[in-house]
Amino acid sequence: MQTLTVIKIGGNVIDDPAALKRFLTAFSTISGAKILIHGGGKVATQVAAKLGIETTMVDGRRITDQPMLDVVTMVYGGLVNKQIVAKLQALDVDAIGLTGADGGTVLARKRPVKDIDYGMVGDIEEVDSGQIQFFLRQDLTPVFAPITYSKEGDLLNTNADTMASAIAVDLVRHNDVTLVYCFEKKGVLKDPNDDTSVINELTPALYADYKMAGTINKGMIPKLDNAFKALESGVSKVIICHADEVGTAVSQGAGTTLRK
Amino acid sequence: MQTLTVIKIGGNVIDDPAALKRFLTAFSTISGAKILIHGGGKVATQVAAKLGIETTMVDGRRITDQPMLDVVTMVYGGLVNKQIVAKLQALDVDAIGLTGADGGTVLARKRPVKDIDYGMVGDIEEVDSGQIQFFLRQDLTPVFAPITYSKEGDLLNTNADTMASAIAVDLVRHNDVTLVYCFEKKGVLKDPNDDTSVINELTPALYADYKMAGTINKGMIPKLDNAFKALESGVSKVIICHADEVGTAVSQGAGTTLRK
Repeated sequence: MQTLTVIKIGGNVIDDPAALKRFLTAFSTISGAKILIHGGGKVATQVAAKLGIETTMVDGRRITDQPMLDVVTMVYGGLVNKQIVAKLQALDVDAIGLTGADGGTVLARKRPVKDIDYGMVGDIEEVDSGQIQFFLRQDLTPVFAPITYSKEGDLLNTNADTMASAIAVDLVRHNDVTLVYCFEKKGVLKDPNDDTSVINELTPALYADYKMAGTINKGMIPKLDNAFKALESGVSKVIICHADEVGTAVSQGAGTTLRK
Repeated sequence: MQTLTVIKIGGNVIDDPAALKRFLTAFSTISGAKILIHGGGKVATQVAAKLGIETTMVDGRRITDQPMLDVVTMVYGGLVNKQIVAKLQALDVDAIGLTGADGGTVLARKRPVKDIDYGMVGDIEEVDSGQIQFFLRQDLTPVFAPITYSKEGDLLNTNADTMASAIAVDLVRHNDVTLVYCFEKKGVLKDPNDDTSVINELTPALYADYKMAGTINKGMIPKLDNAFKALESGVSKVIICHADEVGTAVSQGAGTTLRK
């Protein structure tokens, strides 16, 4: 079975041109089939503000109304995605920028309104792994913006972490999949103030211990819960590492590796 | 040899949601392999103005500085392209939105500075017809935004008419190609004030006569010169028609058909 590395890169790297360049250079050294999913960064919020579009938050979560969806489509689907693709081409990676609408790769459903109307936000219904696999066989490197589409022909804003794990999980039928979350820390830390305190390996049992002890808490918990779910669904391993170290993390190990 | 229809749609249709919907519905009825290249429309100028980016014109031509290129990438490569793709998906057309950077499909070179520095504008160097052909064989319908890329990893603004004819000409090695320019008139008119005065067929000889008589003049001349060049380069026929009539124009003939 061929190996496939699915990598999610967060907004903080997108926002820093030098960091993005370092990441893309490291990404280009990863051998074998690979897929990149990028987050948004602050550019969308800045562009929205300049266009006079207000950012509406409910319970700390962003609401995507139609004007905000247009901004997200412009910035994530256009500016960020195409700049990454052009830079990867210059690094000899045959990248192809996609949203879930392109080739019908990631179909979603507008989130039903319960207590909160999130607006044009998509919950993923189906990944077309055959279509994505077809790009990989052609030695193309898909670069996904966190946007999906509905059967009705609407674009939908979608969480990039969720999109990465959905794609990784769906492609296990064709590949031995490693899922990598890149961020600004060197891995999951025992002490958030000490960058050298990286936990090298996490199993569900170790994870439970760290949570119990309060070593792992808050923001990392939903991320790690999702990561362990991906392992349960057939992903071989999940790596959480610094964006700069993605090359060595995949080839030799760096950051935190999660195993079943 | 399989038939391929390469269709260019102009900005005026992009700017009118109802007209765009009619066009996409007509486009979806065209059988066989097809490629869409869309222009930009006024949205980019409007977004640039709101973002406080000035539009610089020299001798009536727009200069693409880096901030303007970012806007073009957002609006053409993001908003317009992805909205078209999502709408085509809902019409059962398996569309894939591309710039020239995606899959390395259309490589260009930054236009050299002579009298005027056009900025980040690309002159097409090479179309990767093998890559595009690979999408077509998978029953994908490429939808191109008028943006290319350079070997150095820069995105470049590129004329949509030129991009359409370059793609059409390069794909003649694999296909029997019809090139269609859609606009807001029913075809090339004998009398610009009479929409029923469509010239049904143009040959180089007839074209020379009409030019001599002054019937065809001004803005149509560069468009038609390019169209006849595409015929010289192996395209089987060129159709110039109203966006609403693209379906019947391709299947039964409507508008103006150019032949060698």
